[in-house]
Amino acid sequence: SLDSIMEKKIKDVLNSLEYSPSTITKKLSCISVNSRGRLSSCPAGMTVTGCACGYGCGSWDIQLETTCHCQCSVIDWTTARCCHLA
Amino acid sequence: SLDSIMEKKIKDVLNSLEYSPSTITKKLSCISVNSRGRLSSCPAGMTVTGCACGYGCGSWDIQLETTCHCQCSVIDWTTARCCHLA
Amino acid sequence: SLDSIMEKKIKDVLNSLEYSPSTITKKLSCISVNSRGRLSSCPAGMTVTGCACGYGCGSWDIQLETTCHCQCSVIDWTTARCCHLA
Repeated sequence: SLDSIMEKKIKDVLNSLEYSPSTITKKLSCISVNSRGRLSSCPAGMTVTGCACGYGCGSWDIQLETTCHCQCSVIDWTTARCCHLA
Repeated sequence: SLDSIMEKKIKDVLNSLEYSPSTITKKLSCISVNSRGRLSSCPAGMTVTGCACGYGCGSWDIQLETTCHCQCSVIDWTTARCCHLA
Repeated sequence: SLDSIMEKKIKDVLNSLEYSPSTITKKLSCISVNSRGRLSSCPAGMTVTGCACGYGCGSWDIQLETTCHCQCSVIDWTTARCCHLA
């Protein structure tokens, strides 16, 4: 029927334009990456939203968009909080 | 007209596939949840992007993906920064 | 052909409903905004996911949804980690 022809055509066009439900219903997903020393990096494709440091240190910066760097003089561990849409 | 038939059909297909403008134009939305003591949790559906602790403490970890845990020996409050797409 | 008429019609409807691939394939994107003193704000359209403070301070709160406020008695710099979908 015209109806089924149209339905198929619409779905073909949508798929060709990468519109699929899975790309729409993405959620914010985060992990923590903990490392010894004063640097900890997020996996590729994820970005740093915050960092934690050993010895109670709250002074950190982010290098190369992916790596937490804890600045205090004595640091035993660093944690990067890494997030992306998934 | 064929035009209006097609328009209606397209919108029906889109709705059936959960494509609606509101699901597309989502934004990153965050809140802070502040609690007494060394634990603070995000509401369901939100994820922790970072934590703050009392007494200047910058050492924290995240438990069960939703709960900030401040590690220093003396902690009076904990804040979880909670985000999601909305 | 009917096929090309339908294809054009579908794309017109999609465009009219603001469905375009660019709005679908958004990613989480973050920057750090570093400022002297105890306040640092995110640009409009971005939200704070975490804060870092000078002098090892890990006690911060977020004001007006956009501004990191470092609470320790002595603070020389504040960094806001700012994110949005882009």
